[in-house]
Amino acid sequence: MVRTPLCELLGIEHPIVGFTPSEHVAAAISRAGGLGVLGCVRFNDPAELDETLTWLDANTDGKPYGVDIVMPNRVPTEGTPADLGKLIPDGHRDFVESTLTKLGVPPLPAEGAPDGEGVLGWLHSVARSHVEVALTHSPKLIANALGPPPPDVIEQAHAHGLTVAALAGRAAHARAQVASGVDIVVAQGYEAGGHTGEIASMVLVPEIVDEVGGAVPVLAAGGIGSGRQVAAALALGAAGVWMGSYWLTTEEYVIGTTMPALREALLAAGSSDTVRSRIYSGKPARLLRNRWTGAWEESDAPAPLPMPLQNLLVSEAHRRLMESGDPTVVPMPVGQIVGRMNEVRPVADVMAGLVAETRETLDRLAKLA
Amino acid sequence: MVRTPLCELLGIEHPIVGFTPSEHVAAAISRAGGLGVLGCVRFNDPAELDETLTWLDANTDGKPYGVDIVMPNRVPTEGTPADLGKLIPDGHRDFVESTLTKLGVPPLPAEGAPDGEGVLGWLHSVARSHVEVALTHSPKLIANALGPPPPDVIEQAHAHGLTVAALAGRAAHARAQVASGVDIVVAQGYEAGGHTGEIASMVLVPEIVDEVGGAVPVLAAGGIGSGRQVAAALALGAAGVWMGSYWLTTEEYVIGTTMPALREALLAAGSSDTVRSRIYSGKPARLLRNRWTGAWEESDAPAPLPMPLQNLLVSEAHRRLMESGDPTVVPMPVGQIVGRMNEVRPVADVMAGLVAETRETLDRLAKLA
Repeated sequence: MVRTPLCELLGIEHPIVGFTPSEHVAAAISRAGGLGVLGCVRFNDPAELDETLTWLDANTDGKPYGVDIVMPNRVPTEGTPADLGKLIPDGHRDFVESTLTKLGVPPLPAEGAPDGEGVLGWLHSVARSHVEVALTHSPKLIANALGPPPPDVIEQAHAHGLTVAALAGRAAHARAQVASGVDIVVAQGYEAGGHTGEIASMVLVPEIVDEVGGAVPVLAAGGIGSGRQVAAALALGAAGVWMGSYWLTTEEYVIGTTMPALREALLAAGSSDTVRSRIYSGKPARLLRNRWTGAWEESDAPAPLPMPLQNLLVSEAHRRLMESGDPTVVPMPVGQIVGRMNEVRPVADVMAGLVAETRETLDRLAKLA
Repeated sequence: MVRTPLCELLGIEHPIVGFTPSEHVAAAISRAGGLGVLGCVRFNDPAELDETLTWLDANTDGKPYGVDIVMPNRVPTEGTPADLGKLIPDGHRDFVESTLTKLGVPPLPAEGAPDGEGVLGWLHSVARSHVEVALTHSPKLIANALGPPPPDVIEQAHAHGLTVAALAGRAAHARAQVASGVDIVVAQGYEAGGHTGEIASMVLVPEIVDEVGGAVPVLAAGGIGSGRQVAAALALGAAGVWMGSYWLTTEEYVIGTTMPALREALLAAGSSDTVRSRIYSGKPARLLRNRWTGAWEESDAPAPLPMPLQNLLVSEAHRRLMESGDPTVVPMPVGQIVGRMNEVRPVADVMAGLVAETRETLDRLAKLA
């Protein structure tokens, strides 16, 4: 057992928060004594999120869980997918189409054809629907992947007794978040998967702890996939860790029909096999490096579009790349810790291993002192 | 006191190795119980290095010190500076000259004009002269910043009773180094100053420890500037730390006449104020971000040349930028830890602070277990 004040605050056993788009993984993390946090960005339909949270409420053995939204603090370019689509240059569309052809990625089958909407969770209005749905359920925590949520969302969350977390890649952002009423800052380093900044965890975590650690708990995110790394995060002053990538190779992680290719790609990748790029969403995000990301590094590739246009541009391509079943093209946000993701295990085993190694590490360090 | 097996191996009190181009800083680090390692790359004249090592032998109170060379494992493009100069395209020379003019950097004064040679330590033959000179003195350790030294250099060093260290940015490189006879691997993360790879310390250090930690001690380099970070490195499985940037703002660090501008720039910089670029030496190196590095990011800038040509190209520019006394243009390798370098202190104070905070951190962690 390794307890920090975070455990009291969230009512959890281990100071390990696990972000995942899979409700099955989230539930298993919570049942294993961490806090499972469900990524909501993939839910275009609020009714589907509602159903999923109903399932979560019933499957965490009464233990707490959280939700993660992707909501800019200020309302950005908005509109229907059709309106926004008009802002995408033809040259970009042509590049995507010709790249898919070059990579040998087949079109989607006629049945189950795409709705053409892609991931709408990047849209402010859709993220707001996620918040509204979440507040009709019982999450313990709401996290925002794009800094502090808008003030009224923080107020609403607090009124419902939720803890509000936000991700920060710089100390100044963390300071602004706490000033906005955020209760937990997640210091996310360069090595993290998905949207990420340029400062590595070793430097960023103590910097953010020094900035806001007196006011709120700070979680370390980016590069965590072993108990030694959990202990290192605690050494840096974090009250716990936020892990995202590492759950992608758990047994419970099954979304859609494309798992064999995705798993094969993740299990094979080393820590050098990621790239930080704007091609996924329009903001810098770390992805698995493969033939798809490589195409965007060629001299004929256009510059990625801003959020939310870039994701609309590539949304159908993402489905085609996933459905292709080709492990060399899967479009997948993942951190440098992918080099340590070498086998498929149940979440409970992963959690037990993390806790045991953290304890061993603390015991080893105690002998040095 | 925090002791690891590294302390026995090197005969030092604290598991802290400090790399620095300044013999005054190196001596102070060794006197304070760490291992000061003198960077030799700046010594174009072997006689000057000889003199400097004679001074070091006399000024470490009999405590051990090391030397650091920059030597590729295989002999690369070689030749006199004049020969090599012919390989530099005119367009590159024109860009450097016009950039200096744009930045308002004056020419060097007529007296004390440059010899035009720049830093020759990147040349294999010059690095070999550094080894030969070093072996006539009493260093305890010889480190190579570019992977394993050539086999005969390792043999010579071992025959003289020296410990051989090499820097690695990937686990596969570390494995090859140990197979070559290297005694200590320095795992250098993305956040480090100077030549650096893409994998951040949080991920890289345990990866290299798992690869070679059973055979040799691994030091963590990149992002270390506080006792919390030393403790984190130990948590990750490192036997100690290798610090470079952090000594640049010590009282003892005085090289040449340009210190006020350099110090001002370092003290003012935050952790976001660095950039990883090939413009310094031809290989990716992290530098202070400023108007000079910015010019190389403009659309009209040429791609940097390979090592050793790039440094020859910019060597006079580096002198002019330094001599200009303008803190917004100093060409300076430094890591993201520069954000924590906010005051000028004596080395002994820095070392005492590191050791005290490491101990405090280990005590704090012991209470969590």
